[in-house]
Amino acid sequence: MSNADQIQTEITLKVSLGDRSYPIHIGENLIDRQELYQPYIHGKQVFVITNDVVAPLYLDKVLAALSNYETNAFILADGESHKTIETVNSIYTFLLEQRANRSATLIALGGGVVGDICGFAAASYQRGINFIQIPTTLLAQVDSSVGGKTGVNHKLGKNMIGAFYQPQAVLADTLTLNTLDDRQLSSGLAEIIKYGLIRDKPFAHWLDENISNILKREPIALAEAIKRSCENKAQVVAADELERGQRALLNLGHTFGHAIETALNYGSWLHGEAVAAGTYMAALFSNQLGWISSADLDYLENQLKLAKLPTRPPENISAEQFMQLMAVDKKVIDKKLRLVLLKSIGNAIVSDEFDQEKLIHMLETIERIPTNFAPIN
Amino acid sequence: MSNADQIQTEITLKVSLGDRSYPIHIGENLIDRQELYQPYIHGKQVFVITNDVVAPLYLDKVLAALSNYETNAFILADGESHKTIETVNSIYTFLLEQRANRSATLIALGGGVVGDICGFAAASYQRGINFIQIPTTLLAQVDSSVGGKTGVNHKLGKNMIGAFYQPQAVLADTLTLNTLDDRQLSSGLAEIIKYGLIRDKPFAHWLDENISNILKREPIALAEAIKRSCENKAQVVAADELERGQRALLNLGHTFGHAIETALNYGSWLHGEAVAAGTYMAALFSNQLGWISSADLDYLENQLKLAKLPTRPPENISAEQFMQLMAVDKKVIDKKLRLVLLKSIGNAIVSDEFDQEKLIHMLETIERIPTNFAPIN
Repeated sequence: MSNADQIQTEITLKVSLGDRSYPIHIGENLIDRQELYQPYIHGKQVFVITNDVVAPLYLDKVLAALSNYETNAFILADGESHKTIETVNSIYTFLLEQRANRSATLIALGGGVVGDICGFAAASYQRGINFIQIPTTLLAQVDSSVGGKTGVNHKLGKNMIGAFYQPQAVLADTLTLNTLDDRQLSSGLAEIIKYGLIRDKPFAHWLDENISNILKREPIALAEAIKRSCENKAQVVAADELERGQRALLNLGHTFGHAIETALNYGSWLHGEAVAAGTYMAALFSNQLGWISSADLDYLENQLKLAKLPTRPPENISAEQFMQLMAVDKKVIDKKLRLVLLKSIGNAIVSDEFDQEKLIHMLETIERIPTNFAPIN
Repeated sequence: MSNADQIQTEITLKVSLGDRSYPIHIGENLIDRQELYQPYIHGKQVFVITNDVVAPLYLDKVLAALSNYETNAFILADGESHKTIETVNSIYTFLLEQRANRSATLIALGGGVVGDICGFAAASYQRGINFIQIPTTLLAQVDSSVGGKTGVNHKLGKNMIGAFYQPQAVLADTLTLNTLDDRQLSSGLAEIIKYGLIRDKPFAHWLDENISNILKREPIALAEAIKRSCENKAQVVAADELERGQRALLNLGHTFGHAIETALNYGSWLHGEAVAAGTYMAALFSNQLGWISSADLDYLENQLKLAKLPTRPPENISAEQFMQLMAVDKKVIDKKLRLVLLKSIGNAIVSDEFDQEKLIHMLETIERIPTNFAPIN
């Protein structure tokens, strides 16, 4: 188990991207500390973009810390189904009505959906204004708030519209995780587990011991898991900001996962749940290609189960539908599908060197689970 | 007068922006030359975005030059009123239906509206794909195709949504100007005249002698005017890509001009016409502040008239409406309006050091002309 002497509960990491570098502050009770915002706000206007679930919990605290500025808030309806260009347009209208100018700062207060929408609004309002991320879900703290991917869904594909646009700073306050429901917490674990699988075997083994502590929201385990996840992501992003190479490895499980989310209309499964099933599918296919051992496949399945995540796709998506939905994946180049696959635990590759028939066979034969699988709370 | 021995009719300029640098090819008969496209296309898919006026004239020529690729075209309705987020969304849908991937290239074939829309679609489709500009109006050749400003209008303000996103290359084919109507040609001259006024007095004097040749579409005069305009713009953009300082000088006449366009709902006046009236307004205000001489004001008014451009705002926009519309200008910082003003011919500054009452007085007292002023053909 972790030891409080070795592991800090307040940490600042840096994402190194030249003049677009920024800090990630991780710890408890960050969102009401004025001095954590001040260096990143340049004008007088600050607009908080949040949703109707998060606003009652944390909006007042954030606004109180920003009392030196002209503030206002815009509250979105909660949920991935609102991650659309129409919602972004409603933010533009709000900002124009508020006379927001180029020196204004947007603050994304919420989970990945709020961060993605707000980040794209910041990237495209007046061709780009400052923004700060305050991720309030485990998923957003370990994944979407780091690396500058912003955007919205299109009815024909997830995250098809967007920009690479870096925040000025990220505040990952672990206290906000206390209000998160168990299913959301597990969803975040899907991305945490991913870092171990693709590039950090010691972290995978640390997780074997600590997933149960994370599920109990033990603060030291949470801070350590967030820190090690963000470190992994920051290293990958620093080396390949625009995803021309290794950054694609972060998409383990996402090609299958996005297809699941699109087929279910971004409604019934959480992102991490779809990614968990997608991760197992990628691993199973890697195993069928002779790349990872059956022992590793079992290890990975067990880790996902320990995190209370689904490991099979939902029953109502056919192999054919998977193939259609995956054909618009952003990793497709000149009509050739590329997948993130596993060579071993801690070692992933992006590859198009597989027989399409074998992929279809996997999709046809893999076990299915009910779409409304019972989340264990 | 210009001399064919000294002035080339085919020129390549470079916009220097580090790893986002790109060439501008200027000359006659460029759009059907395959070798001018090839270095800038990386995948197999090429999509031409154009409009229903330009398509019948040049689309076949462009597609013929791209016969080595998988091509398709998407034809927009012509006009600034279609420069909306909804039009961009229709391009996303087209691209997704075509299974366009990240290695696809978009080609903007048309005037500034097509370029701005297509550029923003390229910037935001799958977080950014390649694009090439083929500006077919004088305005687009000397202004909007250079410098990476892309975007669309919002009902509450012009160009409020967008991104800084550089093309891979620009092909400015002067032959396409032969199909341009006279009013469009004059509209382009408004931006050409601007470069002389803000930073290039020798160019202003060259224009005194050559505006009449440009209006006659004399190829050498056209190529020289485009070249010197693009050189000026490229220098400014290279020094200040994201408009944090001197790039704002390129907005001479635009704060007033955008207010005119927004008030007229982007319909009856062309962009260059609104900018011409706005330029005179900025110059008149500069004169009233004691900054430019009355002789310089007359010189500038005369140059705009020589180019057959309006020099006064339309009759149905009140001073109050101007002030409201200008309050959302992108140069506003913390509610303080900043204007590009003239110290002399060839010397502009961005300033907020003026008495607002004086500005309102200018807006109340300046002569007005009919909204449907008769364009002289």
